[in-house]
Amino acid sequence: MQSLPARDAIAVIFVSMRTDADESGYGAAADAMERLGSVQPGYLGIDSARGADGLGITVSYWADEESAVTWRRNAEHAAIRALGRERWYAHYQLIVARVTRAYEWQRPDDRANS
Amino acid sequence: MQSLPARDAIAVIFVSMRTDADESGYGAAADAMERLGSVQPGYLGIDSARGADGLGITVSYWADEESAVTWRRNAEHAAIRALGRERWYAHYQLIVARVTRAYEWQRPDDRANS
Repeated sequence: MQSLPARDAIAVIFVSMRTDADESGYGAAADAMERLGSVQPGYLGIDSARGADGLGITVSYWADEESAVTWRRNAEHAAIRALGRERWYAHYQLIVARVTRAYEWQRPDDRANS
Repeated sequence: MQSLPARDAIAVIFVSMRTDADESGYGAAADAMERLGSVQPGYLGIDSARGADGLGITVSYWADEESAVTWRRNAEHAAIRALGRERWYAHYQLIVARVTRAYEWQRPDDRANS
């Protein structure tokens, strides 16, 4: 789990339904996107989950709107996005939102292990 | 996948790591929370995914800040939340954010099936 984003950080929520196609290509591209995103200016962190029903949610956090937009315009990002439409996704939504508050709770016994 | 939220809707992002405890109790409570939330004023929709590593992401959408806060204060919600801390979660984050833009793409061939 990434660090808690501060107020006014930008959360980019990507909700997607996979096709059945090209599982290994998808996995490699998802890893590449995560590596590539993590070195962009303003990148704060990412969390991702995909359930057995094929629905996935990825949330990435950015320092400000400008850094999120710069990442959207990145050429390698655009190329992988085009492959995503061609092969991997049946349906997706991208929701951009500005953090107004954030809260975290951790089980006391688990703090030593995280 | 829920309908795309409009600008200025509130996204409540809940990122959680489960304990191993009480899988059936957790599933029943998660279903109850979803039913209970879906009849609250201002509820717009919810998407949820949990991967094999135990990390889950749930995003619920609300018409405005007031409806999200009212749901947070709901007594049944508070009771289930207390059980969540006691039993089901090792760690969670709750991030509240205001939607600034949203975009959707759907594979043309799949439109008839959704």
